Amino acid sequence: MPYVNIKITREDGTTAEQKAELIDGVTQLLARVMGKNPATTVVVIDEVELDNWGIGGLPIEAFRRQQNSDGK
Amino acid sequence: MPYVNIKITREDGTTAEQKAELIDGVTQLLARVMGKNPATTVVVIDEVELDNWGIGGLPIEAFRRQQNSDGK
Amino acid sequence: MPYVNIKITREDGTTAEQKAELIDGVTQLLARVMGKNPATTVVVIDEVELDNWGIGGLPIEAFRRQQNSDGK
Amino acid sequence: MPYVNIKITREDGTTAEQKAELIDGVTQLLARVMGKNPATTVVVIDEVELDNWGIGGLPIEAFRRQQNSDGK
Amino acid sequence: MPYVNIKITREDGTTAEQKAELIDGVTQLLARVMGKNPATTVVVIDEVELDNWGIGGLPIEAFRRQQNSDGK
Amino acid sequence: MPYVNIKITREDGTTAEQKAELIDGVTQLLARVMGKNPATTVVVIDEVELDNWGIGGLPIEAFRRQQNSDGK
Repeated sequence: MPYVNIKITREDGTTAEQKAELIDGVTQLLARVMGKNPATTVVVIDEVELDNWGIGGLPIEAFRRQQNSDGK
Repeated sequence: MPYVNIKITREDGTTAEQKAELIDGVTQLLARVMGKNPATTVVVIDEVELDNWGIGGLPIEAFRRQQNSDGK
Repeated sequence: MPYVNIKITREDGTTAEQKAELIDGVTQLLARVMGKNPATTVVVIDEVELDNWGIGGLPIEAFRRQQNSDGK
Repeated sequence: MPYVNIKITREDGTTAEQKAELIDGVTQLLARVMGKNPATTVVVIDEVELDNWGIGGLPIEAFRRQQNSDGK
Repeated sequence: MPYVNIKITREDGTTAEQKAELIDGVTQLLARVMGKNPATTVVVIDEVELDNWGIGGLPIEAFRRQQNSDGK
Repeated sequence: MPYVNIKITREDGTTAEQKAELIDGVTQLLARVMGKNPATTVVVIDEVELDNWGIGGLPIEAFRRQQNSDGK
């Protein structure tokens, strides 16, 4: 009876089907690798606003702009 | 000074009064059972979109439909 | 099918019976107030080392000493 | 590569600039104190509705009203 | 750059290899389904003491005993 | 009254003084940037076993070895 929390940035175009696939995929993974019971595996997905996600000391959008300009 | 996080699905009809009752109830429970100071007990409730909650490998709404049809 | 996470400081003398009472109490609270199904309510208790818990800008033991000396 | 989660109440007037400053500040703190690599430090900020935040057994707004009247 | 937290009960016989397989599996799942970058996907596994995990209002060991006796 | 959770890998040589500095630093940061009350700011540090921390699809120790060999 594992509990899984997945945090991703909230992006346009994320669909309910993709989230269903995450739920199914991680539940099957825990069953296959650890023998955990799918019936009691709980998965919670948090979609986090871009302003509220930081990496490398920057909000994610500023970080992405920096990565892109670094790449040129 | 405990910290409690309660995650529930976001449902129509959940009221501020119910959430106040959860906050009060869990704070009292920690005081009674563990002797924890209510003044510094923090409770955070997360209401999670139905698409983002999985159980049994399915998003919760699909899970509920399956349970109902199993029940017949 | 709520998920509850309770974080408390790890103290000598916390018993398995107290933790069982917390699990039972919060599960019943969610059933009574919100109509949540006890069978699928998951509770996880984290007991946190004293060095790793801060309040008021201080580790909890330093904070408690300060509170006690303030009280005199 | 630390992961930091900051939960605050959702208040009018919180700006993207303030959140960027939190992300930067906590990332620098972990680099300075612990030698953690800023490039892989992840920060997630959760802004929690006032009804969903409890302290002292009360939702935060009721708690603030009580504090103010106590203060008079 | 997702963040995934997996909570499972601490059981004898869980190996580092199984945990590596979980880390790899969930990172690949997020790349395949959501196009997330594996390089910045962080996974944290919490192994929770049996006394500290509740389901159905009971600590997990009491719950398992009940399930087994129900099953007979 | 913010709540901050800091997850870092458990490393030899992390001291109580460093953790106290993290608690103080993040509490001051929230006071300075957001005007949050230090008295009710709670900080919880989780030190995670190396086997239980993944990045780039690998447990952190395997990831570090790979980074080092890439760097040569």
